[in-house]
Amino acid sequence: MFSSSDDGTFKQRYLVNNEHWDQKGGPILFYTGNEGDITWFCNNTGFMWDVAEELGAMLVFAEHRYYGESLPFGQDSYSDAKHLNYLTSEQALADFSVLIRELKRTVLGAQKSPVIAIGGSYGGMLSAWLRMKYPNVVVGALAASAPIWQFPDMVPCGDFYKIVTQDFARSGLNCDVNIRRSWKAIDNITATDDGLQWLSGEFSLCSPLKKTDLDGFKAWLQETWVNLAMVDYPYEANFLQPLPRWPIQVVCKHLGFDPSVVSDYQLLGGISEAARVYYNYTGNCPCLNTSSTATGNLGFIGWYYQACTEMVMPLCTDGIQDMFEPQDWNFQAFSDECHSLFGVRPRADWADTVYGGLDIASHSNIIFSNGGLDPWSSGGVTRNISDSVVAIVIPDGAHHLDLRYNNEYDPHTVLSARVLEVKYFKLWITQARKLQIPG
Amino acid sequence: MFSSSDDGTFKQRYLVNNEHWDQKGGPILFYTGNEGDITWFCNNTGFMWDVAEELGAMLVFAEHRYYGESLPFGQDSYSDAKHLNYLTSEQALADFSVLIRELKRTVLGAQKSPVIAIGGSYGGMLSAWLRMKYPNVVVGALAASAPIWQFPDMVPCGDFYKIVTQDFARSGLNCDVNIRRSWKAIDNITATDDGLQWLSGEFSLCSPLKKTDLDGFKAWLQETWVNLAMVDYPYEANFLQPLPRWPIQVVCKHLGFDPSVVSDYQLLGGISEAARVYYNYTGNCPCLNTSSTATGNLGFIGWYYQACTEMVMPLCTDGIQDMFEPQDWNFQAFSDECHSLFGVRPRADWADTVYGGLDIASHSNIIFSNGGLDPWSSGGVTRNISDSVVAIVIPDGAHHLDLRYNNEYDPHTVLSARVLEVKYFKLWITQARKLQIPG
Repeated sequence: MFSSSDDGTFKQRYLVNNEHWDQKGGPILFYTGNEGDITWFCNNTGFMWDVAEELGAMLVFAEHRYYGESLPFGQDSYSDAKHLNYLTSEQALADFSVLIRELKRTVLGAQKSPVIAIGGSYGGMLSAWLRMKYPNVVVGALAASAPIWQFPDMVPCGDFYKIVTQDFARSGLNCDVNIRRSWKAIDNITATDDGLQWLSGEFSLCSPLKKTDLDGFKAWLQETWVNLAMVDYPYEANFLQPLPRWPIQVVCKHLGFDPSVVSDYQLLGGISEAARVYYNYTGNCPCLNTSSTATGNLGFIGWYYQACTEMVMPLCTDGIQDMFEPQDWNFQAFSDECHSLFGVRPRADWADTVYGGLDIASHSNIIFSNGGLDPWSSGGVTRNISDSVVAIVIPDGAHHLDLRYNNEYDPHTVLSARVLEVKYFKLWITQARKLQIPG
Repeated sequence: MFSSSDDGTFKQRYLVNNEHWDQKGGPILFYTGNEGDITWFCNNTGFMWDVAEELGAMLVFAEHRYYGESLPFGQDSYSDAKHLNYLTSEQALADFSVLIRELKRTVLGAQKSPVIAIGGSYGGMLSAWLRMKYPNVVVGALAASAPIWQFPDMVPCGDFYKIVTQDFARSGLNCDVNIRRSWKAIDNITATDDGLQWLSGEFSLCSPLKKTDLDGFKAWLQETWVNLAMVDYPYEANFLQPLPRWPIQVVCKHLGFDPSVVSDYQLLGGISEAARVYYNYTGNCPCLNTSSTATGNLGFIGWYYQACTEMVMPLCTDGIQDMFEPQDWNFQAFSDECHSLFGVRPRADWADTVYGGLDIASHSNIIFSNGGLDPWSSGGVTRNISDSVVAIVIPDGAHHLDLRYNNEYDPHTVLSARVLEVKYFKLWITQARKLQIPG
């Protein structure tokens, strides 16, 4: 209730599974949905399904307002700033809190069920924040790959792209070097109309490139490498796109040229093959579309609005420690873009103010897990803050690998991480039961 | 920033005193202003002034939005539900948090100053909640006479008036009994027009009573007794009204009749003398005005709006365990009244959802102090919740007596309470300094 005059309600979608639930107060694992369709997160959070039986747990997956089917104003939800006004992380946390209390009130046997918040990425930030702000509602939180420190003045803005670059550097000889060289090669070749045409053909682009599309084309490629770094999983998977196991290794097979002898044409030929690994692993894709880089299950506009209000995450590149063209973080330009798109301006220091920034030591029962391959670990908590606000690092893990189903190709570090996570869950559940003094 | 489309700002008033402040990181005592003019709270919170030197502390008194001079929309702030929409406790907490961070950023020497939140009554609720929701911003909180449990289904609704009654019962023989009998006497006498006229004269009312005013007249008297219970201080003071020391004892001197022999006229004569103790201790008051019961420094309309949205506090009477006419808590009637006044309806369970209700054990560094004479202690935390969420009970204290200046008539229990409070402050400050690891 952050507004009393607009006292509307909306239908929030949530999914429940109680196949393994111990109806005598067994715990509830509660996924704090992030910026997308909750069924998609549900299907990509196998960890919860894997541990449900051992914990006798009910599983709940709650959709974040303004995403999937949980649209407060139906089709008008995104129509203007006035309708978007209720899309905030604080509102989402309050929704989760209200839902949990309602479940405990109405589901027979759930009254004393300890609830554990679980989430990945922005959903992980929400699970950590839910524990911070509503410790009476959840007994603990697993925040997987949650960049709660990716806000202004908390971590260096360049770390994100450094990690992306390292992922490519370690996945094949010259891989990062050739990507770094590709930007200039694009400039060289697209200096002529013939070159533009050649490049469009080489990439099988759905719409041929025009001179004015070049920045967009480069941004699309850059995002492709970033996405690959996020989903560099050790087995075949389909999260942002269907991909082979260790996809960056496959990508880098096309980028092993000796940089001192390769021509611009050869280099970009390799880049196009590499991009196809990401966009056409299934072989069903007749042409490449530079207007999107990932699954339609994510709500990009909603997330962009959130970035334009509360979730201000500075990123930058220098072209030296990373393989991208140098680009400073320019808050003013970002703010102006937000204003022209949504009629709002971001508050750079809001997340710091409301969620405590680096200073989270007074909280308890939060696990921050991070993958060493995941660029978002740049803004993650990767060291223990206290006995009960702890970090788990999975060196060969990409974006919240630990939340996925067990797989025969899982590295042992993610298996140990999951074991430790369940151990903490059990500890929190025991603590919670001790606190429930009869009478 | 609970709204991005209405991205307005407003001027918030705050008062600062750094006479005794140790500029090398000395602590900040931060008063979380409640529903009224901050200068008035500042002048009635002598405790902070008394301990400033010992702690080397800066004092800050922050005004709550929509009260005093901190009106977000100037004179229009109260014009309708749309303008009142930003009057919430969550917004107030965010304001305090923003202000504290701004002070630490801009005041030379304050960067590492530990901040302790202090407040009384609703201000005490805010100081406890500030520590709960923003533990990175304040290292601890003193919540004096803060009824954080006076919400639906947390405490019995009748306890409040029971305590009022006990205060009168212990302050003079037959005092509560005669007040309990007075309601019927009012009915008897005002059954005739002559009686109405007599009563108006007896009470020196500014406007003579009409038949239709009777409920209002009784409510005014009832509130008078409640206010007296709140400010039953051991020395002459002027909080809600200028009053003698132990004012209820003075009141009860007029109500010592043997109930078995007193006539209705005698009884109401005594009641009118008693009311005059409260309304005309200075002798400057030519007539009694039944439209208000206390200082103009409190923002009654704002508070009523808050009660009509988030701060739903059930109270009830049974006429047996208390000295009032029986009245159930009627949520529906209250809700309807809110709707007709402000166009809003209260959410009965909101405070429970957002502030944790009875379940506050996972927080830390909060002192709840309560006076045994204070009716609001009915909704206060009067037992230790954990090693660091602790209760201090001052048996002979009224409403946040501990926050007032030291006085020669102070009972020793309030002196001990203040000593203990300062001891906790020092502990929190030491803890905070230990956590500041260089580099």
